[in-house]
Amino acid sequence: MTRLLVINPNTARAMTGLIGRTARAVAAAGTVVDAVGNAMGPESIESHYDEALAVPGVLAEIRRGGYDGYVIACFGDPGLDAAREIADGPVIGIAEAAMHTATLLGRSFSVVTTLSRTIGRARDLVHRYGFERACSGFHACDVPVLEVEAARKPLFEACARAAESDGCDVLVLGCAGMAGFCAEFSAELRVPVVDGVSAATKLAESLIALGLKTSDRGEFAPPPPKRYSGPLSTFGTQG
Amino acid sequence: MTRLLVINPNTARAMTGLIGRTARAVAAAGTVVDAVGNAMGPESIESHYDEALAVPGVLAEIRRGGYDGYVIACFGDPGLDAAREIADGPVIGIAEAAMHTATLLGRSFSVVTTLSRTIGRARDLVHRYGFERACSGFHACDVPVLEVEAARKPLFEACARAAESDGCDVLVLGCAGMAGFCAEFSAELRVPVVDGVSAATKLAESLIALGLKTSDRGEFAPPPPKRYSGPLSTFGTQG
Amino acid sequence: MTRLLVINPNTARAMTGLIGRTARAVAAAGTVVDAVGNAMGPESIESHYDEALAVPGVLAEIRRGGYDGYVIACFGDPGLDAAREIADGPVIGIAEAAMHTATLLGRSFSVVTTLSRTIGRARDLVHRYGFERACSGFHACDVPVLEVEAARKPLFEACARAAESDGCDVLVLGCAGMAGFCAEFSAELRVPVVDGVSAATKLAESLIALGLKTSDRGEFAPPPPKRYSGPLSTFGTQG
Amino acid sequence: MTRLLVINPNTARAMTGLIGRTARAVAAAGTVVDAVGNAMGPESIESHYDEALAVPGVLAEIRRGGYDGYVIACFGDPGLDAAREIADGPVIGIAEAAMHTATLLGRSFSVVTTLSRTIGRARDLVHRYGFERACSGFHACDVPVLEVEAARKPLFEACARAAESDGCDVLVLGCAGMAGFCAEFSAELRVPVVDGVSAATKLAESLIALGLKTSDRGEFAPPPPKRYSGPLSTFGTQG
Amino acid sequence: MTRLLVINPNTARAMTGLIGRTARAVAAAGTVVDAVGNAMGPESIESHYDEALAVPGVLAEIRRGGYDGYVIACFGDPGLDAAREIADGPVIGIAEAAMHTATLLGRSFSVVTTLSRTIGRARDLVHRYGFERACSGFHACDVPVLEVEAARKPLFEACARAAESDGCDVLVLGCAGMAGFCAEFSAELRVPVVDGVSAATKLAESLIALGLKTSDRGEFAPPPPKRYSGPLSTFGTQG
Amino acid sequence: MTRLLVINPNTARAMTGLIGRTARAVAAAGTVVDAVGNAMGPESIESHYDEALAVPGVLAEIRRGGYDGYVIACFGDPGLDAAREIADGPVIGIAEAAMHTATLLGRSFSVVTTLSRTIGRARDLVHRYGFERACSGFHACDVPVLEVEAARKPLFEACARAAESDGCDVLVLGCAGMAGFCAEFSAELRVPVVDGVSAATKLAESLIALGLKTSDRGEFAPPPPKRYSGPLSTFGTQG
Repeated sequence: MTRLLVINPNTARAMTGLIGRTARAVAAAGTVVDAVGNAMGPESIESHYDEALAVPGVLAEIRRGGYDGYVIACFGDPGLDAAREIADGPVIGIAEAAMHTATLLGRSFSVVTTLSRTIGRARDLVHRYGFERACSGFHACDVPVLEVEAARKPLFEACARAAESDGCDVLVLGCAGMAGFCAEFSAELRVPVVDGVSAATKLAESLIALGLKTSDRGEFAPPPPKRYSGPLSTFGTQG
Repeated sequence: MTRLLVINPNTARAMTGLIGRTARAVAAAGTVVDAVGNAMGPESIESHYDEALAVPGVLAEIRRGGYDGYVIACFGDPGLDAAREIADGPVIGIAEAAMHTATLLGRSFSVVTTLSRTIGRARDLVHRYGFERACSGFHACDVPVLEVEAARKPLFEACARAAESDGCDVLVLGCAGMAGFCAEFSAELRVPVVDGVSAATKLAESLIALGLKTSDRGEFAPPPPKRYSGPLSTFGTQG
Repeated sequence: MTRLLVINPNTARAMTGLIGRTARAVAAAGTVVDAVGNAMGPESIESHYDEALAVPGVLAEIRRGGYDGYVIACFGDPGLDAAREIADGPVIGIAEAAMHTATLLGRSFSVVTTLSRTIGRARDLVHRYGFERACSGFHACDVPVLEVEAARKPLFEACARAAESDGCDVLVLGCAGMAGFCAEFSAELRVPVVDGVSAATKLAESLIALGLKTSDRGEFAPPPPKRYSGPLSTFGTQG
Repeated sequence: MTRLLVINPNTARAMTGLIGRTARAVAAAGTVVDAVGNAMGPESIESHYDEALAVPGVLAEIRRGGYDGYVIACFGDPGLDAAREIADGPVIGIAEAAMHTATLLGRSFSVVTTLSRTIGRARDLVHRYGFERACSGFHACDVPVLEVEAARKPLFEACARAAESDGCDVLVLGCAGMAGFCAEFSAELRVPVVDGVSAATKLAESLIALGLKTSDRGEFAPPPPKRYSGPLSTFGTQG
Repeated sequence: MTRLLVINPNTARAMTGLIGRTARAVAAAGTVVDAVGNAMGPESIESHYDEALAVPGVLAEIRRGGYDGYVIACFGDPGLDAAREIADGPVIGIAEAAMHTATLLGRSFSVVTTLSRTIGRARDLVHRYGFERACSGFHACDVPVLEVEAARKPLFEACARAAESDGCDVLVLGCAGMAGFCAEFSAELRVPVVDGVSAATKLAESLIALGLKTSDRGEFAPPPPKRYSGPLSTFGTQG
Repeated sequence: MTRLLVINPNTARAMTGLIGRTARAVAAAGTVVDAVGNAMGPESIESHYDEALAVPGVLAEIRRGGYDGYVIACFGDPGLDAAREIADGPVIGIAEAAMHTATLLGRSFSVVTTLSRTIGRARDLVHRYGFERACSGFHACDVPVLEVEAARKPLFEACARAAESDGCDVLVLGCAGMAGFCAEFSAELRVPVVDGVSAATKLAESLIALGLKTSDRGEFAPPPPKRYSGPLSTFGTQG
């Protein structure tokens, strides 16, 4: 049996529910998926500020441990590098998962996101992961994160616009809250549409099946232990 | 049930056997793996020439169809773009699979290959897939492809040298014939070692589970039908 | 006297004729140009599949040898790396020739090709050769390869559109079948137009005059000899 | 009068003192420099984990506001993007400051850092800021952050080694705690040595003098207001 | 007291005046700014030809020496590398200054220049300095250099168009003659607008305050002495 | 008959002689080569300063006109962009010619130059022309330009070292004064060695034969006419 923890980096319960259902829908027979929300931080992530402040809560869940692998279910992949230093199994971000998966399906993908101000972060990640030549564009539907689950029309239009204007081979959904539209949009637009939560679930399962986890040779070895102060003192890693 | 065809692009039967065993060892419970060798072309692939001439046989297997997904099990990913145009399911090359997987485990990977003359092709693929910043080096063990399965010592030394000199987080084995050493070298060198055959098997399974296959929007749509002549006339695609 | 073999990678005789005439029109006084078609494979190259299957026939011609230099006259440069391993003189692809030549005439060039699905391959080559900053765009006239020789109007319109929208300094014709329009379009659009067949002919002549051919130091040394099976057994290189 | 806040992202008071002295030593006549430590988080930053958890405290200082400009004095530039969204004046990270400054003094710079595990973050920043061609190497002195202020010998040796092996034009000190050695090492090694705290102080002053601050056109506009929960609820931005 | 020489690389006196006023307006209390025009060469710089021929006059001023730092006030940064070899203090070009400054204010900047033919040079500099990812576009107002100071309307329109079409965070003025419009356009368009003369003045002051100047370790060491002939014989550097 | 002007950008007569002989040795039967030295400027080019001040003399020769094509025979390609704006035929720099030619002969080339301080300029050109992936290294023989023609031993050693340490496919000679050693070193080291003067001669001939010259669509159109002052007043382009 494989145990997977899918972490919703924001505090919105409904979104944690959607994320859990999405992961379970694609998980293998022997995989148990637990979905958990963030116990501290923003109710949604729509800025660099929100994202930075979602990270402590994500790391708190990772630290608790006890799973074979972890998924960070926000398209900014918040805290991914830090999570890899402390996790007892592989950790996958949904942006990285969606992008890796998309490049296996064609030459180019376009990202459709919520607010246009989040495109900068998506651009950084595309670059960090090496997909700047594969990424053909970024499009925003201009719907806030917590409303996107119900915003079929503007999201569909943004997807259609992206597919048309960029001539891309694949669409990538740029928010965990969009997962419900994946199959439907793909059928209607006749283009593969990749949702990061599903993709990350399968990649995490794959790494576990392969017996692989984050290298601890240097950069991603456990952090040097030390004292933490103030409201974050529980994060201290001193022996 | 998921049916996967793993294609060995050379004509060496022993290597087809090893590749099949490797894929089956990591396949999920419900996956049936068939392994097939190349019916035409070189007995091993050690040059651009060999690789180019291995492609028709690979495409012949892909054309036959009838599987949910396909793996091309040579580290040059021969015929991958063409295979994607004609396959009835997703197609994964083992070089791309190994590289994508390696980047989920750390910042950097080094490739250990057979003859040093094959490094050029590996370099092209690293670049094509966007991993030029992630790739920290290329090392050859200078053992011919058909002997590498039995060449534990020189291969181990090349791996150790790569891990030491490049300071990389992950090692990538650059030949399907090296698959048998994966777990053992990883334990001994204390660094994740990625074998492409295993990695590609899991990626193919994942895409199938996600209901995804190659985009047929443009570049990878089925090729325009036409007449073929000479020894390759059976590849003709005319209605 | 310099002897040059210009190889048409498809099996269409009319196109071989056009290619031969184009090369001879720019060849130096002392150069004899032979043009030969592909004895096996597709009648035109309009997909990755066609291109991969054109390669064995190209390599068969190269192997025959007996020339001072070779030109591969299809804009995908099919089999170029493999050809360089086995040729007894320099080998030039027409895409590489056209791109190198274009960058000597200005900052930027745009490529005008046949079917839009072939743009992916052109993009790969632009990248492989280092001209991603010099290339300002790709445009398709959406005429099949075997009809482009007679499709003056749509091709002219695509060229005019490229020159206008990209503001490029130079146009590159992305198919050997377009060679006949080179001078005429250049005059009408007042922009240098580069045809790869002519450009490759001059580059091959130049390398020969300089006494240069492909390095055989490593990657491009003659392939290790080995047995080939099936319909491709004649390609075997065993002593 | 210009008022500048220099924030030490860790909780070590001695280091806050050093940072303040360093900034004041180069500040213009009319500039008042306040130096402040982090009220929550790690006592030093030596991992992605430490860095992620230093960010809330940095943002708490920035939010307080009341200055003409801000410097984040840790070489990982923690929280820089988020800080720019909320600050009432320009914000400069010391890594970005050191790198920009170094490129004005020569073609290439090498970074000398504390623990080798922090090189990954430095590499990311070099890339993020566009200096991958200018950066000629990364070297660690393998001294913990809180001891580097007193570790003249190993730091000098790492600097000498970097200058020698990379042939770089400039050295960049990769930790705020190294500031005290800047002039001395420069004189001894006869190579410009750039300290980020000093450089950031001057860049912040310059932007203020030019009347420039972070663009609020899109990505860096103030974050959408929202509710925050748990230990971080005070970061909430709801009206 | 800091003494700064700001060099106008063209021979137009009115422009030298504007440049001097611009620099003095942002200079610190203790800085004396001298502005000097070119004693030989073109009256304005609008081509590679003009720029190349402006360089000897720029270098003649730099050679004279006697200042703590130097600014080359033409957006092509003419002669910058050569100037750094011979100057007795730091040298800053206004293109490099504007671009470095712009990247501290947001993710992306667009350049607005005079004649569209000068965009090529701006593109080269963007690339040389590492800002190809930060630069979101180039726009020309199509006004000659010597008329741009009075061409408020077409310049404003080009700036507005750039801000609108590129969605950039920052605008960079691509000619010293545009400095007068900086604050006004910024206020009207609600986007930071960076003028290179002001920016370079502050960067030069900063380097001087930090005690930094060009590295003389190798490439930028004083040129080997030698004989010069003809009209340029006075540039000879023979002992 | 084709008339080619090969310009030596320095004032050393012996070097002009060598350059002329080198070009004539590879020129086609119908080509007349004139070689001319620089009438003003440095006796050799060994710094950015020398190079910048060699440009006016180069442009003076180009302006005189009357040839079908031009070669600028210094490895820094001084004045190339400006020359292209004013020339009445194609213009080729020997660095660009050598690099383009080298990439047709293998995957990688290394540059062997005179003084190590000139490597920076070579690096810039490698980058400008798009060959950063093809270039495997830079090596200096540390012999001044005017002595290199007689410095067989140190130059040979630098070439041997480059071939050995970089494992490159091709060597590029980084100074016109090295042309005499090209064939000899190639035979001895068993690696293609490319001399830029020869390569540029053939490329210029090729462009002329193809009826191609620099695009005059925008950036490289004739410069706007204007007044020049001082010692450079003869360069004025006013009607």
